[in-house]
Amino acid sequence: MNRINPQFKLANRPVGTVKASDWQRTEEEVRALQDGEVLVQNLFISLDPAMRGWMNDNKASYIPPVGLGEVMRALAVGKVLESRNPKFAVGDHVSGLLGVQGFAISDGAGLMKIDPKLAPLPTYLSTLGMPGLTAYFGLLEVGKPKAGETLVVSGAAGAVGSVVGQIGKIQGMRVIGIAGGADKCRYLMDELGFDAAIDYKTQNVAKALADHAAKGVDVYFDNVGGDILDAVLTRLARGARIVICGAISQYNATAPIKGPANYLSLLVNRATMTGMVVSDYYGRAMEAAMAMGGWMASGKLKTREDIVDGLDAFPQAFDMLFSGANNGKLVLRLNDKT
Amino acid sequence: MNRINPQFKLANRPVGTVKASDWQRTEEEVRALQDGEVLVQNLFISLDPAMRGWMNDNKASYIPPVGLGEVMRALAVGKVLESRNPKFAVGDHVSGLLGVQGFAISDGAGLMKIDPKLAPLPTYLSTLGMPGLTAYFGLLEVGKPKAGETLVVSGAAGAVGSVVGQIGKIQGMRVIGIAGGADKCRYLMDELGFDAAIDYKTQNVAKALADHAAKGVDVYFDNVGGDILDAVLTRLARGARIVICGAISQYNATAPIKGPANYLSLLVNRATMTGMVVSDYYGRAMEAAMAMGGWMASGKLKTREDIVDGLDAFPQAFDMLFSGANNGKLVLRLNDKT
Repeated sequence: MNRINPQFKLANRPVGTVKASDWQRTEEEVRALQDGEVLVQNLFISLDPAMRGWMNDNKASYIPPVGLGEVMRALAVGKVLESRNPKFAVGDHVSGLLGVQGFAISDGAGLMKIDPKLAPLPTYLSTLGMPGLTAYFGLLEVGKPKAGETLVVSGAAGAVGSVVGQIGKIQGMRVIGIAGGADKCRYLMDELGFDAAIDYKTQNVAKALADHAAKGVDVYFDNVGGDILDAVLTRLARGARIVICGAISQYNATAPIKGPANYLSLLVNRATMTGMVVSDYYGRAMEAAMAMGGWMASGKLKTREDIVDGLDAFPQAFDMLFSGANNGKLVLRLNDKT
Repeated sequence: MNRINPQFKLANRPVGTVKASDWQRTEEEVRALQDGEVLVQNLFISLDPAMRGWMNDNKASYIPPVGLGEVMRALAVGKVLESRNPKFAVGDHVSGLLGVQGFAISDGAGLMKIDPKLAPLPTYLSTLGMPGLTAYFGLLEVGKPKAGETLVVSGAAGAVGSVVGQIGKIQGMRVIGIAGGADKCRYLMDELGFDAAIDYKTQNVAKALADHAAKGVDVYFDNVGGDILDAVLTRLARGARIVICGAISQYNATAPIKGPANYLSLLVNRATMTGMVVSDYYGRAMEAAMAMGGWMASGKLKTREDIVDGLDAFPQAFDMLFSGANNGKLVLRLNDKT
């Protein structure tokens, strides 16, 4: 076959914002399969803020770092081209950690069959994928929401945040989204049915919360950290739950991470701040998929993907995550003829 | 009778460390009682770090600030001298928020009868008082300890921390105390039976924890905040619980509070940080008193008071809380002849 595999490898450990030179674009011939392996052609590659953390040499994190010279780790969906694994047949669609490359060889571990007739393929990287599971279990299991409570979510127009807010509405909560820019805020209100939206680029978040959440914030789902976390801490209701899902504002920081200076609000308000890592819930993925599939079918849960074409667009597309330029779940679409 | 009541009033809202000039020493004649009131002669006045917070004009806190010109709020135990309240008889011993003064007039709200035959009076301000309740409910209800787990407590030689550590031992935990100075560390090990003690004044806390808690910290009871909180965050075990009880290192800060820069360890370790305020548990005080009374009787729970004589020693004694000069629960003993 002599298939050529285009790949993006991690060339340097970035300091601060990732530079083009931190990536190495390489090509190599796809090798022959061994017993138990499958060859997958990647069709859509997921770009997620968590990838920035995987690039740091932080052995204490929840997942080992990507090694220098290794293909960049990424979730992707693709199609099985060859199989020497009885669990996967040629033509199956699969999702897994397939990397930023045209083709991936997998031993089947962590590879999951998906059905393109039930949902468009990119949805398996968004609402039916890691971001959706993060939103579902982070809000329901860690946030412990109750009908009538007030939910605030940051990164609200993003892949996780938009699902968090919509599930909050389904649970009967009052939902306030924090996002950057008028377009995103309009999207939250007009398309997703949020009760309020705060544009952190032009508004004072603490003041806006005083207006929109006069009785305080019961659940805060934090994707961003930094100043927004500190602002929400000043507006907690008694017994509030904060879900720490990420800290996108800090991922490119070269200075030490800014801790939440207002954390003693936890004491005053008998509030809780709890971290979550979605992989803890992979064993319950079907439960979430069924619930979310039902909500999607009934129109209660909307999905929006921001699709960028071509593997070679990867470095620029990756930057969009941190500038906030993407609208919805950022996905790279690969040329089917790779 | 013409009793003269010596008092310490709040003269200024302190900036940073409390100065002598922030207090006003006054005297006034004790007025006649009205129906429902009791006159209490204060015998022991409790000095607690929380009092520093009560001096700030922070309306968002869990308790209103002490007003300028008002007698400084403090817990105390005393003896009923006169009573026009059928619930209290002359000669009864009581505890309550009786203030930094020689005599207090109370309408009985929040006043509790105590029995000097069951325990020495100062113990009702320490292990059987607010610090003890804080330790008991903070560790057992918020920290959710399990036998075999590792507990770390800061301010470990203090009124709250020493009880936390001992209850941890009673629960079958491995207990590591963090305190300032070799004397305090020796006390934790030799007198209270802690498994390890870390002197934060001479040791690197994170490194010492790596030695003493190689499998990580399951429960951290935080009385101090600041750098020590940040150090412990680097050593959390999966699913750790942090109890935020106070932040004595920050109470005199004039710069903005230092938030825990390592808070994303909560995410990596699926850990929880929860604030607690002891007054939420006052309704269950008897439950704690019974348990702790039993432990004290059987010698499993030891108490140490650091007793300073005379109301006029109040300003200097109060400073000891923040320099760490006190050994055990700091209590002011009033001249019985006042």
